[in-house]
Amino acid sequence: MTGSESDGERLAELAKRRGFFFQASESYGGVAGFYVYGPQGASLKRNLEDAWRDRYVTREGHMEIDAPTVMPEAVFEASGHLDGFDDMIIECPECGESHRADHLVEDETGIEEAESLPIAEVEAIIAENDLVCPSCGAELADVPVSEFNLMFGTNIGPGSSAPGYLRPETAQGIFVEFPRLKEYARGKLPFGVAQIGEAYRNEISPRRALIRVREFTQAELEHFVDPETDEPPLHRVEDVELPLYSAADQEASAERSSAEQSSGDEPRDEEGGIEYLTVREAVDENVITSDWVAFYLGLSLGWYERIGVDMDRFRFRQHLPGELAHYASDCWDAEAELGGNWVEVTGFAYRSDYDLSKHAAHADDDFTVFRQYDEPISVERATVDPDMSYLGPEFGGAAADIAEELASLAAEDRSAFDGEEVVVEVDGEAYSIPVEKTGFAVREVTESGEHITPHVVEPSFGVGRLLYTVLDHAYREDEVDGEPRTYLELPAELAPTTVGVFPLMSKDGLDDAARDIAETLRAAGLTVAYDDSGAIGRRYRRQDEIGTPYCVTVDYESLEEDTVTLRDRDSTEQVRVPVADLPERIAALRAGAPFDEVTEG
Amino acid sequence: MTGSESDGERLAELAKRRGFFFQASESYGGVAGFYVYGPQGASLKRNLEDAWRDRYVTREGHMEIDAPTVMPEAVFEASGHLDGFDDMIIECPECGESHRADHLVEDETGIEEAESLPIAEVEAIIAENDLVCPSCGAELADVPVSEFNLMFGTNIGPGSSAPGYLRPETAQGIFVEFPRLKEYARGKLPFGVAQIGEAYRNEISPRRALIRVREFTQAELEHFVDPETDEPPLHRVEDVELPLYSAADQEASAERSSAEQSSGDEPRDEEGGIEYLTVREAVDENVITSDWVAFYLGLSLGWYERIGVDMDRFRFRQHLPGELAHYASDCWDAEAELGGNWVEVTGFAYRSDYDLSKHAAHADDDFTVFRQYDEPISVERATVDPDMSYLGPEFGGAAADIAEELASLAAEDRSAFDGEEVVVEVDGEAYSIPVEKTGFAVREVTESGEHITPHVVEPSFGVGRLLYTVLDHAYREDEVDGEPRTYLELPAELAPTTVGVFPLMSKDGLDDAARDIAETLRAAGLTVAYDDSGAIGRRYRRQDEIGTPYCVTVDYESLEEDTVTLRDRDSTEQVRVPVADLPERIAALRAGAPFDEVTEG
Repeated sequence: MTGSESDGERLAELAKRRGFFFQASESYGGVAGFYVYGPQGASLKRNLEDAWRDRYVTREGHMEIDAPTVMPEAVFEASGHLDGFDDMIIECPECGESHRADHLVEDETGIEEAESLPIAEVEAIIAENDLVCPSCGAELADVPVSEFNLMFGTNIGPGSSAPGYLRPETAQGIFVEFPRLKEYARGKLPFGVAQIGEAYRNEISPRRALIRVREFTQAELEHFVDPETDEPPLHRVEDVELPLYSAADQEASAERSSAEQSSGDEPRDEEGGIEYLTVREAVDENVITSDWVAFYLGLSLGWYERIGVDMDRFRFRQHLPGELAHYASDCWDAEAELGGNWVEVTGFAYRSDYDLSKHAAHADDDFTVFRQYDEPISVERATVDPDMSYLGPEFGGAAADIAEELASLAAEDRSAFDGEEVVVEVDGEAYSIPVEKTGFAVREVTESGEHITPHVVEPSFGVGRLLYTVLDHAYREDEVDGEPRTYLELPAELAPTTVGVFPLMSKDGLDDAARDIAETLRAAGLTVAYDDSGAIGRRYRRQDEIGTPYCVTVDYESLEEDTVTLRDRDSTEQVRVPVADLPERIAALRAGAPFDEVTEG
Repeated sequence: MTGSESDGERLAELAKRRGFFFQASESYGGVAGFYVYGPQGASLKRNLEDAWRDRYVTREGHMEIDAPTVMPEAVFEASGHLDGFDDMIIECPECGESHRADHLVEDETGIEEAESLPIAEVEAIIAENDLVCPSCGAELADVPVSEFNLMFGTNIGPGSSAPGYLRPETAQGIFVEFPRLKEYARGKLPFGVAQIGEAYRNEISPRRALIRVREFTQAELEHFVDPETDEPPLHRVEDVELPLYSAADQEASAERSSAEQSSGDEPRDEEGGIEYLTVREAVDENVITSDWVAFYLGLSLGWYERIGVDMDRFRFRQHLPGELAHYASDCWDAEAELGGNWVEVTGFAYRSDYDLSKHAAHADDDFTVFRQYDEPISVERATVDPDMSYLGPEFGGAAADIAEELASLAAEDRSAFDGEEVVVEVDGEAYSIPVEKTGFAVREVTESGEHITPHVVEPSFGVGRLLYTVLDHAYREDEVDGEPRTYLELPAELAPTTVGVFPLMSKDGLDDAARDIAETLRAAGLTVAYDDSGAIGRRYRRQDEIGTPYCVTVDYESLEEDTVTLRDRDSTEQVRVPVADLPERIAALRAGAPFDEVTEG
């Protein structure tokens, strides 16, 4: 077992001491669920975001936008977050502490997915099992469970201000702007729109450092596709082998484990269910039902490797039928093993036309695109051309609405015009109109296409969780020259500092020479740490601990020969390199070239 | 006059049509003060932020952090935002519209800086001048003016939740974490901490697109310095010529203009006050009173040029004595001319120890650093060692507090111990203690240094305003081949798209070859637009309009000779370049090399 609880604690200690992340506002007692990325963490996070952008935006030719985090209430009425984005909460009548009722039930009774149970049933389970407050031990039987909306609310503007919310996901900032965004795509599907930004969830019980927080960064891509005509370029990824934990395998494994319940605590047993299939096999065998989701799993596997996720602690897990949103046809989570638990780091969902249809129904705008037919087609269309000189005098103020209703009715049910009279309803009142006054006619028309609501494929990444995973999976302890060493084996592309520059001594011009080198490397766009304090060995260890892949030491030979030593973090190997070659060689190393090759000759 | 109102309108139209920025949630009627950066705008914004980071963080060796946008109330009690971050508001009793009372007074009476007047005076001015509601014309005499806090409030956590606020400036996220950040600097001054991130102000009347918004991006650097021993490296910038509009010049110009009031409307007249001084001259002549502020003005001038700010429409304006915060010794704004108005794009302030002292007083943490003396010094220290076997029985529960008060008193005023009895106050009650029971003594001690509260130098940049300035100052109209053309002369480093790639025709393999080139350029980290629709001239114009500096066209010759045409946006010059050389040459162009040099041979 590679990731134990104590690894997690060691990592949290290192993260705080060396400036990766720590709880916010600790000087004021701290606020649960809010974290600061320190200098190393902010740099690592940015490099991670850049690597994401490179893979999912730049190389795929998608767009990226930057939308506000505060959005008006109407958006969340449409998206469903105002009504449905709730957790079950129970507040202890003794100590006042709030808890997630479903988690309490899961932790204490072994019941799974309590989140999907009705409130009354959760209350009954709490009463039947005599569950108590985890904080103070007070009895919770008969304490009401209620729904708690996880959005942070605020008010926009002064006076009669308008309610607003901090967005619970970056995706809404994309969906809402679809009518504009499709113009930038010149109305042509498929196209993708990405966003990296903050999202907020007022969690009842934030926990596990960056894993469950109240403010977090998401990197989301919304790929808008025509469900009938657009196909993903599966050929690009068809041979990629995916570690899949399908819904069927999960169900089989659950049955097996309940059969073997008495055989003891074997947490890894569950993972026996991982099956390796190529993207092509997974699609052909219908293990992944959406080709688009399969494409993104294939595209993503190499990216997780690139950012340093340990492939032995990684899987794609399919949502169980009970987990799946009603509108989603298939959904898979990328999960990383952290401290013995599997944690979701990305969700891949086929969301159909759910999001755009919702906004189309609530907003006053056009959320469709025009699908051109290969050939124009001829269709029969029933239309009306009401005689307003009759409708006006006859129905007064209702005439215009009646005309509109007649038009809708003709499109929907032309048989309504078969008789002498046609009846339409306006504001609850029925009006009868002679068909001859409606101008009803069926015409042959030529149409070149139709308006459709695009479907959405959504890979949604949690940047903080990925960052935590990358750190956890990079954590190493070894021994160098008989001394224990801690280092982070981060990919050079991601390391917060690319190169440490040290003068052997802070005198005789060594420091000036080292500062010059540091400045040259910074001008080349590299992140440099200059350090002249303490023994060289100690300085190496400091950089090892934050994952700096390369260190440059300036010694007396440097002043004569214009060369320095370049040291590799993982192997601790050192070679001499001409000063003039440093920027180019380190840039090559950061781009992924092996140390041996770049430093030869 | 380069920037007229109609230029501003043309720019806003271009910004929306081509995806730079547009009002958020327009499908839902829009929300004032919230903007979306579209694909071009988000890319430009990121490039601008990267250019800032390169200049103010990477090259200076400072740290950068990423702190939450939601912070607890206690932080803003300390910072003063809870009480003092208000605007004067007047709500029309007829139409319910809210207005800034000070702006109303300024707009209608010509009074300047109404913001600094007391509320009662503003009310009186409104009544005396019979001012009316700008929206509906209702009389506002006798309508009360009140203070409106500009912070967006929210609640953190469920149940008995805690008040929180969206930060009104990124700076607080740095100040609050100072006790941690100084550890990363190993307790040594000077050091700088930067942050780029969202900040929020619930403006009463958002206006002028990106200029006054409710959610915006700041790039702030807090440079922590020892006011006695740290000096800025002025020599690096001493020859930089600064366009300065000093407080003295502003006052002189105001006098002149009131003397010439009848001479008509000459808006540029005011700017006659700009004086060009080198950094060294400005410091020597005491025009800039803080050397640190002078250093940052010098460092920044070249950066503004680099990002494309028109130096003929730029100045540094000193705060007038009335504008200056009481704790700030000197403050200058970088201002850009936009549509005939000068708009602040950066504030440079010497904030003394104000921020850290405030937090030290409110929070339970150490906001000082230890200043080591060159030599240890010997000082007399008065100390107490109270006889608790006397204080305990005598004063009961108050004994410990009394002992603490005695210690403070000894440090502050040793003469209090001159008599037989010494009196201290605890919780409003006076206690008299025999001096002999206090263990009072004056000792010679050796001290190696002292704890000081660092001073703060703060360059604070508004990213949205800078972006708007860069666009406005890059806007060009000319004529090419007899046709009018609109283009953005953006620096290549900032342009949202670096290169457009076009096949001459979408057939005969030209499209495949062009796609291959696009992919190669993307893999090299460049932002590429692939466009195969419409005439080549039209495609060039599309890229010109979003400021794409280079376009590559694949034609029939390309298939035979492996060369393409590379076109320069500004000169519209075209040269033939080998396909294999493209990534390297375009990278060189983006880094600032001139077109002629890079494309020769």
